[in-house]
Amino acid sequence: MAKEQLRVFKIGGKVVEDSDQLSTFLQAFSKLAENKILIHGGGKWVSEMCQKLGIVVNMVDGRRITDAETLEVVKMMLAGVANKNVVSKLQGFGCNAIGMTGADGNTIQASKRPLKNGIDYGFVGDVKKVDHQVIQKLIDAGLVPVFASMTHDGAGNLFNTNADTIASSLAIGMAKEFDVELNYCFELNGVLKNIDDPESVITEINQSNYSILKQEGTINSGMIPKIDNAFDALDSGVRAVRIMNSQHIKRLAEGEKEVGTLIMN
Amino acid sequence: MAKEQLRVFKIGGKVVEDSDQLSTFLQAFSKLAENKILIHGGGKWVSEMCQKLGIVVNMVDGRRITDAETLEVVKMMLAGVANKNVVSKLQGFGCNAIGMTGADGNTIQASKRPLKNGIDYGFVGDVKKVDHQVIQKLIDAGLVPVFASMTHDGAGNLFNTNADTIASSLAIGMAKEFDVELNYCFELNGVLKNIDDPESVITEINQSNYSILKQEGTINSGMIPKIDNAFDALDSGVRAVRIMNSQHIKRLAEGEKEVGTLIMN
Repeated sequence: MAKEQLRVFKIGGKVVEDSDQLSTFLQAFSKLAENKILIHGGGKWVSEMCQKLGIVVNMVDGRRITDAETLEVVKMMLAGVANKNVVSKLQGFGCNAIGMTGADGNTIQASKRPLKNGIDYGFVGDVKKVDHQVIQKLIDAGLVPVFASMTHDGAGNLFNTNADTIASSLAIGMAKEFDVELNYCFELNGVLKNIDDPESVITEINQSNYSILKQEGTINSGMIPKIDNAFDALDSGVRAVRIMNSQHIKRLAEGEKEVGTLIMN
Repeated sequence: MAKEQLRVFKIGGKVVEDSDQLSTFLQAFSKLAENKILIHGGGKWVSEMCQKLGIVVNMVDGRRITDAETLEVVKMMLAGVANKNVVSKLQGFGCNAIGMTGADGNTIQASKRPLKNGIDYGFVGDVKKVDHQVIQKLIDAGLVPVFASMTHDGAGNLFNTNADTIASSLAIGMAKEFDVELNYCFELNGVLKNIDDPESVITEINQSNYSILKQEGTINSGMIPKIDNAFDALDSGVRAVRIMNSQHIKRLAEGEKEVGTLIMN
């Protein structure tokens, strides 16, 4: 029997923190006919609240050092405000969302990140295991899981975890039971040939044109880790990965195929 | 066929906010053999965070006026910190908890409280409807729902809602499918004959001894609304209501019957 389709969407803080952009995205998301899961960040809110509370924001290479005080703010702003805003808005659009972290339902287990180059990232988790069966039961119950980017170790500790990584881990985990497309939403229209031309979207990337695009230097170096991660997800059973503008989800909901950059083997 | 047993527990902020008391409670809670649901408050944390953020705390007759800024703090501290602390600790005790608000899974719909005596309580919800079927599906999936005391209107708005009321609404809703005992946990050992003697617990209250106890003036006037609410829950299908010390849950887990005050028709 053919597997049912499942779309795994990741939206970043910029969408979550802008009430209008968030509503536009969620309204179209709620109309998608396929099974679906949403993962969201909300890092700017964490930084802003840290500043209000006098907690020093400490980032290394774009990654947040999450000490005990910062972890409390991550719970507040990601699992609290961001997650419940998304869930209640989706309910308003008739989508039966259920908000989660990786601790809820023991869905995403992680281990504390070990020291890297002598840097202690604090309460930051590296994903170890996704329980796809619990998530499938939620989907079977007619629910749409909405994950804040937190995980846990199963021993009582919560971790801050990169939302892109959670999205990819969930997509890979769910691929055991579903035909999964992983959709990374951001503020650009896709992977661009020319970073100064927002319309220069590369519509498809596969292994053969990827090596050419890299050789030519066409792909911006910042995109390379993202695309490498996408190919890793494909190697682990995900059917396709799409990098797209969050505000173009409406076109997906309307059945359009060419939206953003589709990465396939 | 006899209905399966379900215990609905409510713990207040005093338990949630004390890490040791919370762990003692949750460890015993995780050992209870019956189906179970937990509802928690966390109001002191809301007040403390409001003070840190310079938001005026406004209480009328013990009820919080929840303006838009305060609602954000309720999301932060109840749906965020308190709920995720409880869930991750339960996971550490091997109990597969899933954190919720009434918006999650559209489980508890409410309407904004109308003006009362000219007072606008703000984003405060009066419970309208519990979806017992979604909650039952979570329980059937092996999950233990843990509710922060928030509801929603199904149109995108979240509300702060009294945790005792949520517990009673959930107990009544679940009584359609389960044999429900509602357990209100607080810092006393039960309903006391003599407020100065912590051991003077009235072990059982029913309609006939309740009227005598009231006539005699034995029951503290502050307890009367709680007991009246308990009888309302019994009239709506809940089998029994227990008022007990949160730290005595271990005795329930060990099968002891006489714990706190049992209210039955």
